[in-house]
Amino acid sequence: MTAPGLEHFYSVIPAGGVGSRLWPLSRADAPKFLHDLTGSGNSLLRDTWDRLVPLSGAERIMVVTGRAHRAAVESQLPELTDPNVVLESEPRESSAAIGLAAAILVRREPDVIIGSFAADHVIGKQKRFLKAVTEAVAVANAGHIALIGITPTEPATGFGYIHFGDAAEVEGAPSARMVDRFVEKPDLPTAVEYVEDGCYLWNAGMFISRADVLLEQLGEAEPELLAGIVELADSWDGPDRGAVVDRVWPNLKKIAIDYSVAEPAAAAGRVVVIPGDFDWDDVGDFASIAKLHAGGRKSDLAILGEDARVLADSSTGVVFSQGKRLISLIGVTDIVIVDTEDALLVTTTANAQRVKAVVDALKLSGRNDVL
Amino acid sequence: MTAPGLEHFYSVIPAGGVGSRLWPLSRADAPKFLHDLTGSGNSLLRDTWDRLVPLSGAERIMVVTGRAHRAAVESQLPELTDPNVVLESEPRESSAAIGLAAAILVRREPDVIIGSFAADHVIGKQKRFLKAVTEAVAVANAGHIALIGITPTEPATGFGYIHFGDAAEVEGAPSARMVDRFVEKPDLPTAVEYVEDGCYLWNAGMFISRADVLLEQLGEAEPELLAGIVELADSWDGPDRGAVVDRVWPNLKKIAIDYSVAEPAAAAGRVVVIPGDFDWDDVGDFASIAKLHAGGRKSDLAILGEDARVLADSSTGVVFSQGKRLISLIGVTDIVIVDTEDALLVTTTANAQRVKAVVDALKLSGRNDVL
Repeated sequence: MTAPGLEHFYSVIPAGGVGSRLWPLSRADAPKFLHDLTGSGNSLLRDTWDRLVPLSGAERIMVVTGRAHRAAVESQLPELTDPNVVLESEPRESSAAIGLAAAILVRREPDVIIGSFAADHVIGKQKRFLKAVTEAVAVANAGHIALIGITPTEPATGFGYIHFGDAAEVEGAPSARMVDRFVEKPDLPTAVEYVEDGCYLWNAGMFISRADVLLEQLGEAEPELLAGIVELADSWDGPDRGAVVDRVWPNLKKIAIDYSVAEPAAAAGRVVVIPGDFDWDDVGDFASIAKLHAGGRKSDLAILGEDARVLADSSTGVVFSQGKRLISLIGVTDIVIVDTEDALLVTTTANAQRVKAVVDALKLSGRNDVL
Repeated sequence: MTAPGLEHFYSVIPAGGVGSRLWPLSRADAPKFLHDLTGSGNSLLRDTWDRLVPLSGAERIMVVTGRAHRAAVESQLPELTDPNVVLESEPRESSAAIGLAAAILVRREPDVIIGSFAADHVIGKQKRFLKAVTEAVAVANAGHIALIGITPTEPATGFGYIHFGDAAEVEGAPSARMVDRFVEKPDLPTAVEYVEDGCYLWNAGMFISRADVLLEQLGEAEPELLAGIVELADSWDGPDRGAVVDRVWPNLKKIAIDYSVAEPAAAAGRVVVIPGDFDWDDVGDFASIAKLHAGGRKSDLAILGEDARVLADSSTGVVFSQGKRLISLIGVTDIVIVDTEDALLVTTTANAQRVKAVVDALKLSGRNDVL
């Protein structure tokens, strides 16, 4: 089932993250990855799965998700087998999630190479994606930690950037470059410089590495976290899993894998990046969804929702409808409307980042019924 | 019960008009006058009733409305007695509605003076309103047709204007002026001229006249219409009412009383206007509702609806909520949101007049379920 050169490759999909900036569409019990944000008819999770099957085969895709989402995930991914489901009793960030997947898999298959791909990103130009991952696997085979960075198409301020240096000289990975350093989300003038410079890529959070290399690197920066993960993995395929998870998992340090693995490894000259020239978006807020659907045109109104009934006159932006109500828009531009059974959001694409503040306000006021 | 000088006065409330520009709040089966648009807790109809009680007493208020609205009207006005209910089998415009009321009442009481007041306008400064009507009744007593015009507070383009001339010299009506002519809704530069001129008033559609004078004037311009009305009135308090209504009413000419009575009477020098310096608004669209609630301040967000739950951040305009859903607004200005069970409208105050076009489009496409 697997492509040549990818025999040891295993896909890991961390499916966490509610996606607060997509409230009230995304909820604690219906997080972003379970939604169709592209109008494809599939959820982002299902699209992610379908994208990875040609690389690893369906039987070699592991999903790390919350216990609460098990049923929803399994209903979207009927091919997902029990040994490939890792359930978190509570969210502990990406180092714990990806580290545990790596530790479980390396016990089953010592030479395994894992690739971690978020469950809630959108990718276009599939062939180019496959080519980039294939190069990244060649890099991982050579013992490096590989990232896939995205060649910027605009001076985005919502993503972190990767600065690359010399060619990495890895066989089977002609475009591989050594990673110099990571930079946080820049302001606009800095982002413009980055794009002009030509040596910066968007950090899309795609890691490809031998599982043992990843765990070794994690242990250097976070030895206690690694010890916990190892304890979990040792009991994983035995009878004590539940008890050990209940005891160990809630005490694992919450830290993004960028800080526990990628940055220290890059500083030590062990990280290689493959520039990806496919389309990529983390659909972090409603503005990016509107942009995604408009295909760059400002004049479009995107309408999402199976039963959506929208009557619009001189309006642009994006409408999500979860019901069958008639939604009528007159002369509203760059609007964002999310119409759900118990909550309605009306904002503009320019204010899309502020949706998270509403969620925070609702949390503070105890209105968990709508979160 | 009635104030001195008002012994012959009878209030008539024509309660027709769906208020298309207030869709989806106003519907065929829930027209504008049945809604609370002011946040007073009362419908516009109930507020109109309460405003007229000090003038004519509750037992002398007649309501002309559609058969379909009888139950809703009677539930809002429990004091309304059967002889004071005039039901239209279908809408035939204001000449038929007010003419029939006048003809019914003059048979019961030959000296009756009627005052007609729309069921769906908003009036503030009640004492000034009462004073203006009292002057208008004195004018009617002297045999004139009296109007109440509103001293403009801004160059409104949404109302017709009344141009007045010399003082009318009527005892008991010191502010009465002769009406020169009526002018249609002006454009903005013309409206500015009108306001500067000082001799123009907004036409608020308030008529006060002896019933016999009104009918005589109607007969001069529209003899057939008057004949139909007389036939209806002759049978009204007898056993044949239903049969006569079914036969005569649907064939009455549809014409506004402005054209059948006010304009010809003004041309003949028989119309007098009392300038009213109370607050008045016909709440014709959502922009006027927003303005009404903002009290002139641009920074306000008006929220209407008994169970409305609105969380707003840097937003202005007006929200109507008929449900209990959480409505969250972020950074939307001059917005109009109407959230009903089967239809949602999102527009801006600047586009408020265009709501009618949506209703027309829905009619054309046969979507009467939401009209």
